Order: sequence, then structure tokens, then C-alpha cells
Amino acid sequence: MPSHFYAPTKQDKFAFGIWCLQNRGRDPFGDQTRPELSALECIRGLAQRNCYGFEFHDNDIIPFEADAKQKKQILSDVKKALGDWGIKATMATTNLFYHPLFKDGAFSSTDPAIRLFATQKVMNALDVAAELGTQVFVFWGGREGVEVDASKDPVEATLWFREAINFLCEYVIANDYDIKFSIEPKPNEPRGDLYLPTVGSVLAFIATLDHPDMCGINPETAHIKMAGLNPYHEFAQALDAGKLLDVHLNGQKPLRFDQDLSFGSDDLKDAFFTTKLLVDHKYAGTIGFDAHPYRSEADPWDFVDRNMRTYKIMQEKVRQFNDNKEIQDLLKDIHGANPNLRGLLTKFSKDQAKKLKEMTFDVPALTARRLPYERLDQLLTELLLGVL
Amino acid sequence: MPSHFYAPTKQDKFAFGIWCLQNRGRDPFGDQTRPELSALECIRGLAQRNCYGFEFHDNDIIPFEADAKQKKQILSDVKKALGDWGIKATMATTNLFYHPLFKDGAFSSTDPAIRLFATQKVMNALDVAAELGTQVFVFWGGREGVEVDASKDPVEATLWFREAINFLCEYVIANDYDIKFSIEPKPNEPRGDLYLPTVGSVLAFIATLDHPDMCGINPETAHIKMAGLNPYHEFAQALDAGKLLDVHLNGQKPLRFDQDLSFGSDDLKDAFFTTKLLVDHKYAGTIGFDAHPYRSEADPWDFVDRNMRTYKIMQEKVRQFNDNKEIQDLLKDIHGANPNLRGLLTKFSKDQAKKLKEMTFDVPALTARRLPYERLDQLLTELLLGVL
Amino acid sequence: MPSHFYAPTKQDKFAFGIWCLQNRGRDPFGDQTRPELSALECIRGLAQRNCYGFEFHDNDIIPFEADAKQKKQILSDVKKALGDWGIKATMATTNLFYHPLFKDGAFSSTDPAIRLFATQKVMNALDVAAELGTQVFVFWGGREGVEVDASKDPVEATLWFREAINFLCEYVIANDYDIKFSIEPKPNEPRGDLYLPTVGSVLAFIATLDHPDMCGINPETAHIKMAGLNPYHEFAQALDAGKLLDVHLNGQKPLRFDQDLSFGSDDLKDAFFTTKLLVDHKYAGTIGFDAHPYRSEADPWDFVDRNMRTYKIMQEKVRQFNDNKEIQDLLKDIHGANPNLRGLLTKFSKDQAKKLKEMTFDVPALTARRLPYERLDQLLTELLLGVL
Amino acid sequence: MPSHFYAPTKQDKFAFGIWCLQNRGRDPFGDQTRPELSALECIRGLAQRNCYGFEFHDNDIIPFEADAKQKKQILSDVKKALGDWGIKATMATTNLFYHPLFKDGAFSSTDPAIRLFATQKVMNALDVAAELGTQVFVFWGGREGVEVDASKDPVEATLWFREAINFLCEYVIANDYDIKFSIEPKPNEPRGDLYLPTVGSVLAFIATLDHPDMCGINPETAHIKMAGLNPYHEFAQALDAGKLLDVHLNGQKPLRFDQDLSFGSDDLKDAFFTTKLLVDHKYAGTIGFDAHPYRSEADPWDFVDRNMRTYKIMQEKVRQFNDNKEIQDLLKDIHGANPNLRGLLTKFSKDQAKKLKEMTFDVPALTARRLPYERLDQLLTELLLGVL
Repeated sequence: MPSHFYAPTKQDKFAFGIWCLQNRGRDPFGDQTRPELSALECIRGLAQRNCYGFEFHDNDIIPFEADAKQKKQILSDVKKALGDWGIKATMATTNLFYHPLFKDGAFSSTDPAIRLFATQKVMNALDVAAELGTQVFVFWGGREGVEVDASKDPVEATLWFREAINFLCEYVIANDYDIKFSIEPKPNEPRGDLYLPTVGSVLAFIATLDHPDMCGINPETAHIKMAGLNPYHEFAQALDAGKLLDVHLNGQKPLRFDQDLSFGSDDLKDAFFTTKLLVDHKYAGTIGFDAHPYRSEADPWDFVDRNMRTYKIMQEKVRQFNDNKEIQDLLKDIHGANPNLRGLLTKFSKDQAKKLKEMTFDVPALTARRLPYERLDQLLTELLLGVL
Repeated sequence: MPSHFYAPTKQDKFAFGIWCLQNRGRDPFGDQTRPELSALECIRGLAQRNCYGFEFHDNDIIPFEADAKQKKQILSDVKKALGDWGIKATMATTNLFYHPLFKDGAFSSTDPAIRLFATQKVMNALDVAAELGTQVFVFWGGREGVEVDASKDPVEATLWFREAINFLCEYVIANDYDIKFSIEPKPNEPRGDLYLPTVGSVLAFIATLDHPDMCGINPETAHIKMAGLNPYHEFAQALDAGKLLDVHLNGQKPLRFDQDLSFGSDDLKDAFFTTKLLVDHKYAGTIGFDAHPYRSEADPWDFVDRNMRTYKIMQEKVRQFNDNKEIQDLLKDIHGANPNLRGLLTKFSKDQAKKLKEMTFDVPALTARRLPYERLDQLLTELLLGVL
Repeated sequence: MPSHFYAPTKQDKFAFGIWCLQNRGRDPFGDQTRPELSALECIRGLAQRNCYGFEFHDNDIIPFEADAKQKKQILSDVKKALGDWGIKATMATTNLFYHPLFKDGAFSSTDPAIRLFATQKVMNALDVAAELGTQVFVFWGGREGVEVDASKDPVEATLWFREAINFLCEYVIANDYDIKFSIEPKPNEPRGDLYLPTVGSVLAFIATLDHPDMCGINPETAHIKMAGLNPYHEFAQALDAGKLLDVHLNGQKPLRFDQDLSFGSDDLKDAFFTTKLLVDHKYAGTIGFDAHPYRSEADPWDFVDRNMRTYKIMQEKVRQFNDNKEIQDLLKDIHGANPNLRGLLTKFSKDQAKKLKEMTFDVPALTARRLPYERLDQLLTELLLGVL
Repeated sequence: MPSHFYAPTKQDKFAFGIWCLQNRGRDPFGDQTRPELSALECIRGLAQRNCYGFEFHDNDIIPFEADAKQKKQILSDVKKALGDWGIKATMATTNLFYHPLFKDGAFSSTDPAIRLFATQKVMNALDVAAELGTQVFVFWGGREGVEVDASKDPVEATLWFREAINFLCEYVIANDYDIKFSIEPKPNEPRGDLYLPTVGSVLAFIATLDHPDMCGINPETAHIKMAGLNPYHEFAQALDAGKLLDVHLNGQKPLRFDQDLSFGSDDLKDAFFTTKLLVDHKYAGTIGFDAHPYRSEADPWDFVDRNMRTYKIMQEKVRQFNDNKEIQDLLKDIHGANPNLRGLLTKFSKDQAKKLKEMTFDVPALTARRLPYERLDQLLTELLLGVL
């Protein structure tokens, strides 16, 4: 393949969080290593690289302390940029974690004033999102959790969280905004344990909301791997539930601090299967990246390029996998047993149950079936390594 | 407290899996270290220790190869034992993992014959459960997962899993059995990655079933800690969703092989909070233990005693926590801020939204509120250590 | 016990890192939540609480940019404080991680100028340590590691690291300083993977130095648990090797971001066994705490108090364990088998080997020995819970 | 490349544990799934595939209960096979973990009779190894550890372990065997925590032995990843210490049960860097694989083939990396700063120290140096994916 084969186009629907590009390299043990780019610089750089969209927290573009006039000016500048540069604001969210006010939670704070302040902040951010034409609005509960479990009952905390989301759904309806909510799980960091730690917990939480149809999920590779779970399976459950509204792709060594590495930089197989899921199931949302450059980088652009490039390489690998004769023959064989017995569980009837109750099975034969998974996995390995 | 203060009574509703007591000390690197007790020996021993109930897999009491006559005799013996010894069969389940037939899954096998065989096996186990008066029927998908993600699409595998559970719900309805289903999550082991790895994923899966009301969850401490998650929070989400049908208490060092240690033997604080949740929210189900004696034990009885005893000690600690003046004063203070602002998010109206939009907040004051969590956590620590 | 039974005294030899008290609550997702205390405020507060000592990085007391005159003044102030307040500077170290200069390592930087700058910075810090009478000088290689393994060969990086330590040992000798080096391992964070990740790796590294006798180890509970290892075992190997020069006690949920929780706040059993090791083996160094208050605390003093208090409670628990008749009887039984066969491996001779070769063993009897570990562990559990 | 480019040859020095091929698919939750091959079948199969060697436990070829005559016959058959089939017995070890006798340790058992029995068993295994010309003799302490820390002092347990190894070193010397010892670390499983959990802990332990020169280390990829550590770094420390006697390559998802997956099947980047270390540093030992086929495989041969094949593909990737102009230019740049300042720490003198003390550094310039690690890592990623 010529190298430009993997160059991004608008059709790829790539998007980056502005905060990823604004990341200054600060960490718990070290100072800033590079200057913070302005939001407009980030947006322009992404547009120049054929990115479809950008994602933002309210405070990525509008400072916490900005007054109404400043806010208006900033929004006007951003809207002009969208038009001039041909890029969309694909996802918006609220920063409910940076300010010390939120030190013990926003929606799950024990102080009802803080819960109200957080809700108000989201309402304002929703107004901004609507003005910029953003249709996906994310909740990541970065401070919704505890170190000290004695401090609050998780059932009560969940109730407060639910109340806020329900209220905000109504606000969107009342304003007739064309916006869906997307909740992003994470198991821990910055809090000792965060509420809604996993994809499943978010999906289950949504099922308890007043307007589940307005809510989906925004799974992130790294957050999944921080609990040692399998991103392919976790993204799949979201998709199966019809809730895969948005994705945050990146990389992470399992079960350690949140690294936010580039997509595919740690685990090529995970990256392949995540891509395969999105391709096979015709996921139509944006391909969002939520990661940041290594602290040793001077600017974010090599980082931006590589995430998109790796995704496109993986798309091509998926195509090869789906076209490879030996792989597909193996899969046909693996999935081809007893075709006449398919579908017998689809619909229950007493007769069907009786029939099943009386069926006899050739246990030794069922046990003996060959499952050439070492071979299959090796074919994939060699396909990934480009030597098949 | 005199030592017998912590002796179990029927009112405690304790239950043990028979398989826990039958465990022979076999592991991947070592041979059996103790004889396997018969099911009846296990049941008698539990009854003698004032256990309320026992839990069982079909093959814990009826061998895989048993014929109809043998099965009938066994069931008759067990029923007699229940009556004679005053113990209940509180939970039943199906072994869909031990036989090599299930090497690549039961409900998620690529072979429809194996999916049918598994379903038939569950139907038979349901008949047994109904006969023994068992009202909770558990599904633990010990082989529902993969090592080789290339082998099947997790969306398709979930679909097969759902189809089987839906079919079996109908079977229970059709037979008018007084049985609820309870699904038990686990992240990995024996498969590389298991489907339905977490409490959240099970709750989310239930929400997609035909009869969600018939289904609950059976969370297990160790399985939660194998994903590094917080048992207090995970049990709480199940409870909040109204799905905490059954519990499996035990102990586990996080993020390693499934140790199935005694409850509280690894982490006293986790044990305290799990107990606190069940007490505070008046959980009324059985207190089931799913663990096994150390491989170096000669018999299971010290193990049985300690699990119940630790739970009762923790119940007493919860009582002390809820009665302790300094702790409760701290909690009142922590939860007492801005009482006039409570409940404003409970019901949405355009007016309410407008009012909230226009509220002003004293950000520095909200930020400055003291949260004496080091003190609170130390009080709990000293209460646990018995020196408060 | 009356509560003051656990009040700290100078004889307890407690020490805290100044940086722990100066911690401002900043984290990767959030801003500062409390003011930074001056070094002198920290030292005074510790002295008032009967702390034996404090520990410090060069830049905790002397700013990175301080000139010679400022430095002199500061040192003079600190020395006066030591005398006036009756507290010692028990441990010193160099901050080789905060400044962006060190973004890709100090001693393991690919740039020899940075390696030299780091070495010079340590030489200056050694001069300060000597002036303050500090006898333990710690190296924690917070930036010695990588995210991108392609960037440097770990064998070469280790060689640079060793060269610097060897050079600095000579510097101590040449200056006749009464100082020993102590190296502190950590597996990851802030770098993706740190060199010298474990207690064992530090001990092994010391064995390759020019002056191993000048070097010991400073193990930290949290860093051990970040690799899922057992602090009791890790501290024990350091002690067995004669290298346990210093300790950093704290708490941590295993296998996640560096939490630096209070000692015993997460795992009471780990805290007990760490204390037991130090007590049983008559460890004579300082009991150093390296943790920080929860981000939600307004000041560090509740945090300071609880760490010392928990350690003293654990000391008392160890005394109870060593005095408890049932526990000690069990241990005598467990350790009492075949006393006549003890010591036969202590000294090799051909005769001894021949004799052993010809010995016969009663395998069934050896296999059948009872090991009542469930009972023993439960006794410890109840002792910890104060109900034994 | 034509596919046979990656076919194994004797020069590759590949070796497999016989136990890997004999693995029957038994696991804690499931029964045997395939027949156990005889040792001779395994050896023949490996020889036919151009394997250089095989590795074995005493009881892989000689049953625990075999008498002297049976043992003699078996050894004679194996020796004949070595000659006939042109394969070596490259590594031997003793099974000190399977028999229930070892349930609480072999060398670290509290029973001196068991310690002696274990030592005798190793002496016999050493005689067998010597007879078969095996030069590397491994110790993996599969039962040397605890679940119940109250049961023994890890310092005392380490002392017993050391005593046994010292005794056995003398035995080798006394018998003039051409054998070196190699110790294999593992953090946990089957015991709750194993002694000597990491590469570093083994290297540190060796430094305390009477004959450190006779002892090296046998690191295993999976065991390293079970503690979340970096195999490249861990293998490197062994190599740097001159102790990398033997290697056990395989694959593993971090921080879960011991999976023993095929080399490279989980993490291609880890596999690449492990290979790179061995190639770059001209490691001359055998390339041993210690893994086992998926439980769903009917026989081990696809598994055997893929491990060797992936290693050879990685060797070729290392060659490409070392030849790639863009990568090598970047590395030259990264390592090329301030060449005149190299080597100044190699030898200490008071003059040199004075000179360094007085050096001035351009801190802003050192800070500003560009480190294009995103680009470098992406080049490696694309090289691995075969699209560079």
C-alpha cells in the first residue's frame, strides 16, 4: 500500500478532544512540559488534518470565570471557525472535576448546593452545545466516587446522580435540543473508586432512568483496561444494547494509572478487534480519540497523526481478515456444526420444550469436535504482522 | 461479648454451596489433598451448624452419568434429609462447565447442539430445583467466553446466551415453578475473558431479556475483586436496581487467580461495608458463602465456622458504627449542608429550570467546606480494630 | 486501653516526609484544594506531635531557583528549628522528577548533560544532608523509565544509573560523610514503566554496585501493592538481605494509580504483618510514613495523627498475637514436626549427602499432617477485630 | 518472504517443556479434554519439527511411584531416543508441587522431613539430569509460599530455601556434574503469594547464596506479566546481572490467572522487545517455550508450530528495526546530544567531582530538547504491522 492510502479523510469521521491537544504534560509528580494551545489553534490543526470533528468541555473553550460578554465573543469565534474550516463540534461535555469545589463529587456531592451548581453548569454547557450544533453530550463523572466509603451510601449517591440526569433530560426536551446524552464509565482515578465503573454499570444505570432512549454510552478503551476487561467485549455489549452512541479510542497498559496512550500503541490485537466490531456492525458515529501525547512531546501533531493512521491500518486489516480464504474457511467450519439444529430456542412453546426435553445427544461426538483455535489465532497474528 | 454471641442461628439465613465443602483441594498444579464428602454429609454438617440452607449444582448431588432410577433415589434421599435435618435447598444451579463437552461454551457454543444440550440440562435441573422447593436458580457462565476473539463475535454470542435464558424463563412460566433466575458475573477464569464479566454487565443484560422481572443477580465478592472493583459499590448497584436476589460472600486478593477465600479473611473493610449494605438496606435473602477451604485443610468445618462467625462479628460492628456518637455526628455534619436546597432536582418543570438557571452560588464558600474524612475513616478503622 | 496509650513518643521514631504535608491536593484531573504549608510549619507541627524526625527533598526546603545566599539563609533557619524543636532530619533525597528537564529521566536520560546535571544536584543535596546531620539518603527514580521501549535499551539505561550511584558513593566517601544510600523501588507512574520496579530489583541492583555496603533499600507499602505483591514478603526479603535501611509505610488499593493512603487505611492485615516483621526482627530505623491526606482535607494534621496511631495499635496487636496462648500453641504444633530432622541441611558433606540419599520417608504420613490454617487465620482475624 | 523462511532449524535452539505438550486441558473448573501424550511421543514430535531440545520435570518421564528397575528402563529408552532423533535434554527440573505432600511447601515446609524429602528428590533428579547430559537445572517453587501469613515468618522460610539450594550446589560440586542452577520466579498461583515472586527477587536471593556463580535465572514472560511488570525490563536486569541462563517465553494477559498462552499471542510489542533483547545482546542459551495449548485443542502440534514461527517472525522484525533508516536516524538523534559530556561519571576522582560541582548547565536548553517518541513508536508500530 502506498503510505497515503492511510491518510485521513472527512468520511472517516475522526474526532479528537480539544483537551487532548491542550494537555500540557503536567502529572502528579511533574510540572508542565509544553505550552497549552488555544482552542482555536487545536481546531484549526485538526481541520487541516482532515479531521471530521472535535470534542470539548465547556471550560476547554470558555474559562470557568468568563463573564457573559467574554462567553459570547468566544462562541462567535468558534462558530466562525467551524464554518471557515469545515469542521464540526461533534461532542460536548461539562468539566465537573477540575475546580476544587467538586473535590467530593458533583452530582454525588453530599452538599445539595454543589449538586445544583453542577446541574446549572451542565444546563449552560447544553446551551453552548446546542448553539454549536453538537448532538452528543457526554457525562464523565470524574469526581463521582469516594476514597472513604464511610462518608456516603452508594445507593443514595446513585439516586442523586440519577436525579440530576433525569432533570437534565427534561431540560433538553423542554428546550427541544437535538442532543443525546452519553455516559462514560471509568473504574478509578482520580477518585479511589468511581461510581459507574464499567460499561455494564452505565448500561444498567441507563435502564433505570426516566428517559433511557435519550441516553447512550461512550466507552473508552483505557478505562476498560484499567479494570482488566476486554474492550472488544465491552464495546460489544454497548452495541448489542443499542447504546453505542460514541467511542473514545486510545491505549493503556492494563491495571495501572490512566495512561491515555495513542490508539493501538500498547495492544495491537485489542485495537484490531475494536475496529473489527465497529466495521462489522456498521457503527455510524464518530471515531473519537481521547488520549494525550507523551509528556516528552513538544506538540500534539505527531500524536494526532498516528491515532488516525493506526485506525485506518486496522480497517484495512479487518478487510483482509474478512477476505482471507483460510481464515474464513476455518470460521465456516467452526460455525458450521449441526446447521439443522439452529434456531430451535428462538421461540418457546410447550411442544418445543417437550421435544427438547426428549432429544438425545451424542455426548462423545459433541465433546470430540475439533476447534483449531491455535491455528486461527496464529493466522490472525500473522495477518496483523503483515506476513500472511 | 461472649464468644457464643457470634454463633449462627437459623434466623441468620446462612447458606453454603455444597461444592465448597466437596472441594478436594485439586488445583492446576496439584493433586487432590483431601477426600470428597458426599452431598448428604455436607448437608448434615451444615444443618448441625445451624445453617439455614445449602446451594447445589445438579451434578453436586446427581452424577452426570446417572440414569433415571439413580436420580430418583438420590432425590428421595435428599428430600428426606431436608425434612429430617431442618435445612433448605436455597439455591440451585447447573454445572455447564466441568464436562469437556462445554470446552468452548454452553449457551455461547458455536455448535447449536451444545446450546440445546445445555438448555436441556438446565430444564432438568429446574425440575429438580422445583421438586426440592428451591426458589433461586443461578446461572454462572463458567465457559461462556473465549481465549481467541477471532473465533466468534461477542454480539452473536450474547444473542445465543439471551435466547437460552428467554427460553428457560418461558419454561419456568409454563411449568408454574416458583423460581427466579439469578445470574452470576465473573471477569475471567477459567476462560481468558468471560462474557458478563461484572455486576453492571449482568444488570444490563437482564434489561434486554423478555422477562426481566424473573431475573436478578448473584454477585460474588471475589469475582468483583478479580476486576479490581469495589464490592460495596457493586452490590449497591444491584440493590439499587432491585435485583439483589442472592449474594455470594467470600474473600480474594484483587486481580489474580480465583482464590475463593473465607469471607473477611483478606479485607476486613470490604467485609464490613458489604455487611453494612445488607443490614442498612434490609436485604432479606440468604447470606450465601461461595468459597473453599485452603488446600492444606483436612476437612471443611473450620472453614464453615469462620465464614458465619466473621459475618456475625461484622453485623455487630455495623451496629456499633450506626450507634457511635462521634461517627454519627460527623456524618450529620457532612450530610447537613444547605438543607433548604435539597430536593430541587426531584421534579422538573420549566419554572424550576429557570429558577435554577438564575441561582447564584458562593463558589469560594462551597469550595471551602471542611470534609473531615481522615478522621471519619480513622474512627471506622479503630472501631473495626476494637479500640474505639 | 485508654486512648492515650497509642499517643506517639520520640521513642517510636516516627518520621514523615515534608512533601506529604505540603501536598496541595493537585491531581491529573484537578486543581489545588488546599494551601501549601511552608517547610518550617510542617517541621514545627511534626515536632509538636512528638515526631522523631522529618524527611525532605532538596526542593521541599530550598526552591529549584534559589541562589547561594537564599540557600544559606534557609539552611540556617532549618538548623535552628531542629535544635529549638527537638526534631531530626532523618532522611534526605533529591527531587529529580518535577522539573521538565527530567521529562525523560535523570540518571537514565539519553542526554549525558542531564545525567551530569542530576548528579551535580545530588552532590549539592548530599552537602545539605550532611550539614543537617541526615544519615539516610534516598534515591527514588521517579523519571527513570519509559513509555516507548524503542527509545533506549534497558541494559544501557541501567548502566548509566549504576555509574551515577557509584560516582556518588565515592563522593560520600571522599567527603567523609556519615551517610548511607537507600534506593526506593516503584513499578510505574509517573512513567509507563519504571526501572527498578520492585524490592527484589533494587536488592539485585545493589549487588552490582561498587560499594554495596553503602547502599540499602527504602521499600514503600503502596509501591509494592501497585505490583500486586505482598508487603510482608517484600520487606522481609530486604531485611533478610541486611538492607532494610528505611521504611515508607502507607496504604494502597492494589494495582491502580498511586494513592498514597494512610497506613492501615486500606488493608489492616497487611499493616499488621508489616508491623509484626519490624517488631519481631527488632528493626531499629525510623518508622517513616510516605502518604498524603485525601484531596478533600483542609490540612494534614488528622492525617498525621492517624498514621502514627494506627502503627501503635498494630504494635499492640503484635504483642497480643505473640502472647496469645491458642495462637502460639497452634504455631508450636505447626512448627514442631520431626524435630530430630532439623538442621540436617545446614552443612554439606559427602557423608551427609549419602545419608540423605538413603533416607526413607513415610510419604502417606507426611501427606496427612493436619495444618489448621483456617483456624489460625480466624484467630488472627478476631484478634485484629478485637473480639478474641 | 516465503512462508518456509520462518521454519525452525536446529540453529534456532528452540526447546519446549514436555509438560506443555502433555497438558491434558484440566483446569480448576473442568475435566481433562485431551489424552496425555507419553514423554517419548512428545520428544519425537519435537525432534520431527527441528526442535533443538526438550525440558522436563523428573515426573514427566519417571512416575512418582516408579521403582529402580522401571526408572532404569525409562532412562535407557530416553537416552536412546536422544541419540536416534537428534534432540537434547536441555533443561531438567523437579516436580515439588503436584503431590499433596507438598501442600504447604517443599523447601519452605515447616516440616523438616518434607524439606529433606524435597532435597532428596532433587538429588535424584540431578543424577538423572547428569545422565542425560542436561546442563541447566531449574527450580520453580510452585508451593513455596502461603495463603496464611500467620503460619510462618518469611525470613525463616527464605533461610530454609537458601539452605536447600546451598546444599544442592555442594552436591553438584561433589559429584562433578556439569550443571548450573536456574531459579524461576512467579508472584502467585497456586499459592496465594509465592516467595521469590519477581526476577529481581531471584537475582537478589542468588546474591545471598554460597555459590552465586553456579546459579542463574529462568524468567518467564507470563509470570512477569502476572505482576504487571515489563518483560523487556525484567529480562534485561537478568542479562545485565550476567544471570540470564535460560528463558521461558509465552503469553499472558496481565494480572490474572496463569494463562500460559503462546508466545506473542497476547502482546506483539512485548514479544518484539523480548526478542530484540536476546538478539541485540547475543543471548546464546536455548529459546524455551513454557506454555500450553488452549484447552479446546485436540493435540499440541499447532501450538508447537506457532510459538517457534512467531519467534522467527520477530527475529526478522528486529533485523528490520535495526536496519530501518528513519528509525535509526531518530535514535541517533535521540542518543546524540552532548557527545563531549559522555563518560564523565565513569571514574571518580576528587578533581572530577570538583569539576562537576562547578559545571554550569543551560537548563532551558536541556529542557527544550525535542524527543520525537510518538513518531518513533509509530514507526515501530507500522514496522510490526508490516506496513512501513
